[in-house]
Amino acid sequence: MVDLSDLVNQFARLPGIGKKSAARITGYLLKNRRGGFELAQVINDVLENVANCSLCGNYTTIDPCPICADHTRDESIICVVEETGDVQAIEESGYFRGHYHILMGSINPLDGIGPDKLRIKELLQRLESGSYEEILIATNPTVEGEATFLYLQSILAEKSYKISRIATGIPMGGSLEYADRLTIRKALQSKLYTK
Amino acid sequence: MVDLSDLVNQFARLPGIGKKSAARITGYLLKNRRGGFELAQVINDVLENVANCSLCGNYTTIDPCPICADHTRDESIICVVEETGDVQAIEESGYFRGHYHILMGSINPLDGIGPDKLRIKELLQRLESGSYEEILIATNPTVEGEATFLYLQSILAEKSYKISRIATGIPMGGSLEYADRLTIRKALQSKLYTK
Repeated sequence: MVDLSDLVNQFARLPGIGKKSAARITGYLLKNRRGGFELAQVINDVLENVANCSLCGNYTTIDPCPICADHTRDESIICVVEETGDVQAIEESGYFRGHYHILMGSINPLDGIGPDKLRIKELLQRLESGSYEEILIATNPTVEGEATFLYLQSILAEKSYKISRIATGIPMGGSLEYADRLTIRKALQSKLYTK
Repeated sequence: MVDLSDLVNQFARLPGIGKKSAARITGYLLKNRRGGFELAQVINDVLENVANCSLCGNYTTIDPCPICADHTRDESIICVVEETGDVQAIEESGYFRGHYHILMGSINPLDGIGPDKLRIKELLQRLESGSYEEILIATNPTVEGEATFLYLQSILAEKSYKISRIATGIPMGGSLEYADRLTIRKALQSKLYTK
């Protein structure tokens, strides 16, 4: 027999939701049952209809996804990111107009994630069949992201593509005083001449 | 056609979940689809099977609920609380062994909640048919909870029940220095003689 605590436990398993929040959400749904049934319905619908784009790997209800299918975008540049959320973040910046390729992770030997676990084979296939001239690698400036960048750089070294890396530096609104030393070092290395 | 953003919006409507958490949960479910379908199933099961206990009003899958049906509990005292979560909190304290009655809210004229919107009629019916000698009123020490306490006290004044109120004071681990002045005042009023 299902019990109230089963639902609390289900919610508590979601990322960022503790036991107290889970109990609060459960109470909310019991008071708003129509909304609760709607939530269950949308979970089912989305999980049944959303799949990965066969080209970039992003979540989509149509394949290829709207970005890959959009031929008005710049087809000479492809931006390689770790996760689907990164595409969203870059799109919201409004600056990039090329295509994307999602690796679905980054190289992390401690977690047993080697290059073979990432969508690198798919990237190489895509580069073969596409008209890309530049590969902008926008993996995170973390140990794993840097390792992934270095790996991609090495396997693409022989090819004719231009390879670029998203800049590391002091974030907008940040202050040098509170920036960590490695970020400052990277920001100085990446200095831009303006005159 | 359902889209990923529909699910993000559904989660963002839950209490305590913002847009970013909602996106994170959605991403988590897309990576753990089995868990996602299970969550939807449990939401449906719980909403279909959990109802309010006809006696105390607490959420339960059997009626009357296990607490009301437990005749080994002290049937001379009934604890009146605002919400179902309050029962859980008091049960976890392990101190109270009587029955409960949940008002499902507190008197709040600004939100249009008068005594008629609360389960007060049910409380009076229950007192008639039960063997209760004491009514412990454990509404919150807020403006609304105090108003509810005063209202209950007034309508029960003619009857022979003992009426008690859960104590207000400095919380365990708290410090006088940082307690608000009203709490200190209440704590002093409720002083206990120990010798």
